[in-house]
Amino acid sequence: MTTRTPEERLLMWLQDAYAMEQEAETMLEAMAGRIEHYPELKARIEAHVEETRSQAERLTTCIAQLDGTVPVARGMVADLMAGMHAAGNALMSDEVAKGLGISYAFEHMEIASYRALVIAAREAGHDDIAEVCEDILGEEIEMADWLIDHQEDVVLAFLERESTEGATAKR
Amino acid sequence: MTTRTPEERLLMWLQDAYAMEQEAETMLEAMAGRIEHYPELKARIEAHVEETRSQAERLTTCIAQLDGTVPVARGMVADLMAGMHAAGNALMSDEVAKGLGISYAFEHMEIASYRALVIAAREAGHDDIAEVCEDILGEEIEMADWLIDHQEDVVLAFLERESTEGATAKR
Repeated sequence: MTTRTPEERLLMWLQDAYAMEQEAETMLEAMAGRIEHYPELKARIEAHVEETRSQAERLTTCIAQLDGTVPVARGMVADLMAGMHAAGNALMSDEVAKGLGISYAFEHMEIASYRALVIAAREAGHDDIAEVCEDILGEEIEMADWLIDHQEDVVLAFLERESTEGATAKR
Repeated sequence: MTTRTPEERLLMWLQDAYAMEQEAETMLEAMAGRIEHYPELKARIEAHVEETRSQAERLTTCIAQLDGTVPVARGMVADLMAGMHAAGNALMSDEVAKGLGISYAFEHMEIASYRALVIAAREAGHDDIAEVCEDILGEEIEMADWLIDHQEDVVLAFLERESTEGATAKR
């Protein structure tokens, strides 16, 4: 079996994180573009799309520092999943509620990934990369917290709209 | 467009939660079955498989109370995703680290779902169902907390094993 140093693994995880942010951008853009009746949620997701692009740039710098290359095309699996989420959401009568849950879950995938990256960067002796990943981690935690803090409002508005004749609830 | 009462939506969400627990069972069983070198993680996942089965039973009771039926077959999408996760994981050289991240994300999908269920149950005037969902929510939060509390140990052990000649790190 292949032996890898923490530095080699760190580079692989940075490349995975870059691909993950590409997937996040696709997903979040699709979601924000569809929301009509939940303006606060739409605005926060749009702001996070910008943040996501900046995160990908910061990861690019870390990857270059380790003489690695950025994955050129986003992964097939990433595309597949993003497409599936978008298609699935579009068909769901409770799209906004499910979308919030899916985003909250996705943020925690990112949180776990950046926590692992911080550990790997420290083990590999790259404290500067650890700091970049800690900054991004903080942004992902803030987004996750925002989503769950606003969930009750979104769900109550959804239930209210859904039981009202003539109102669209799903997005 | 279709108008639905909070009670009708509550039933739909309970049915979704049941399907989600079926998917969780499939995913967690596959994951626990593959882990070899991380016994504490394996044991916690196995314990959560049992918990997941009991959650599905409690959901069944709530669904019956609203005169609904339990989804007989687990959804095609659920099977597809569970299979994809299992296949993806099996090919990953960092299966245990990715598996922990995926589980952590999945727990937060469940957390968001049960929080929405508690709100819908209260809106529909079914406080007893809200209590069942609050109990399950507590179990999901505990599992998520356990995973993140043990992540550093798992990641450090993984990096150590991966850089050691002759040790299998991935599972």
